[in-house]
Amino acid sequence: MSSSVLFMSMSLDGYIAGPNDGPDNPGGDGGAVERLHAWGYTSAGELRRSGPAGEMAAAMEATGAVVAGRRTAEQVGHWGGAHHGMPVFVASHRPPGPAAANHPLVTYVTDGIASAMAKAKAAAGGRDVMVHGAYTAQRALEAGVLDEMQIHQIPVLLGAGRRLFDVLPTRVELEVVQVLDTPDATHIRYRVRR
Amino acid sequence: MSSSVLFMSMSLDGYIAGPNDGPDNPGGDGGAVERLHAWGYTSAGELRRSGPAGEMAAAMEATGAVVAGRRTAEQVGHWGGAHHGMPVFVASHRPPGPAAANHPLVTYVTDGIASAMAKAKAAAGGRDVMVHGAYTAQRALEAGVLDEMQIHQIPVLLGAGRRLFDVLPTRVELEVVQVLDTPDATHIRYRVRR
Repeated sequence: MSSSVLFMSMSLDGYIAGPNDGPDNPGGDGGAVERLHAWGYTSAGELRRSGPAGEMAAAMEATGAVVAGRRTAEQVGHWGGAHHGMPVFVASHRPPGPAAANHPLVTYVTDGIASAMAKAKAAAGGRDVMVHGAYTAQRALEAGVLDEMQIHQIPVLLGAGRRLFDVLPTRVELEVVQVLDTPDATHIRYRVRR
Repeated sequence: MSSSVLFMSMSLDGYIAGPNDGPDNPGGDGGAVERLHAWGYTSAGELRRSGPAGEMAAAMEATGAVVAGRRTAEQVGHWGGAHHGMPVFVASHRPPGPAAANHPLVTYVTDGIASAMAKAKAAAGGRDVMVHGAYTAQRALEAGVLDEMQIHQIPVLLGAGRRLFDVLPTRVELEVVQVLDTPDATHIRYRVRR
């Protein structure tokens, strides 16, 4: 059965981007995003294909569709139109801007996160759905449509920026599914209990 | 050599207490602190002495002195006057209230966190210093007097409350020293890089 899985790199103090992130300032100030994603790259700047980082990359790429927030999608230019060839569903309250018009695999869903997730699961052909973005993750948790979280916890305190988890209306219990211990990141997979 | 070690249980979303915590409402609303510390107790409510939880308790008790923030110290009634027999140094801008007067092993230090840490290290007789409290941890990080952090990361999103890490003036790089993977908590030991 298809699961929805949040994949995010987060500092120990809970940040996923620097301050003032936006389409004109992707990742925010101070190189926060580069720091948070360094675990996935070799010193030559290439994607790591071996070891735990390789396993993590393979797990992401084994998904069949993406649900992302508008902030995330716009900051990465809609991943050039597809995320590793996968269709992208952008949950947003507003219709798409002109930047999304030339991307047939990018679909804006304006009637809520549950609808975006249902469309993505249908498109994923039995594979998992990758979820990206802080606001989107929080809404998916609230709506009960997030199944798992793969958190890459980075041994750094960024001190400021955009948080993955901010305020949620209720407590959410999790189950630890897997912990991968590396010097660059502690990769923790959680299942959301319902 | 004596190290200063922050020991804290934290939810995945970074909270260490519920909302509105204070001397009249220890741990804050909603039973957050009970949830965060459940890993350390048996179902009969006794301290766990075996397994990873036992190791963690033993590590805490092997320290020689405690540095705590005033908020923490007052909420737990100064641990009845000593923390497992150890002297307690409370870092505070204000002199002690009447509640602390009858506790000869409790010392209020009002000239800064670095001074409190130095006094605690001197009292610890070569053993480590246990650090408790969010505000105190942040000030110790800022002052460069926190050596390690033992974070018990609990698989729960509390959604609201008091955060362990809030805003820090600079980025702090950490080194992962040890990860203990249990169903109840992911125990991660970090060394602060300087």
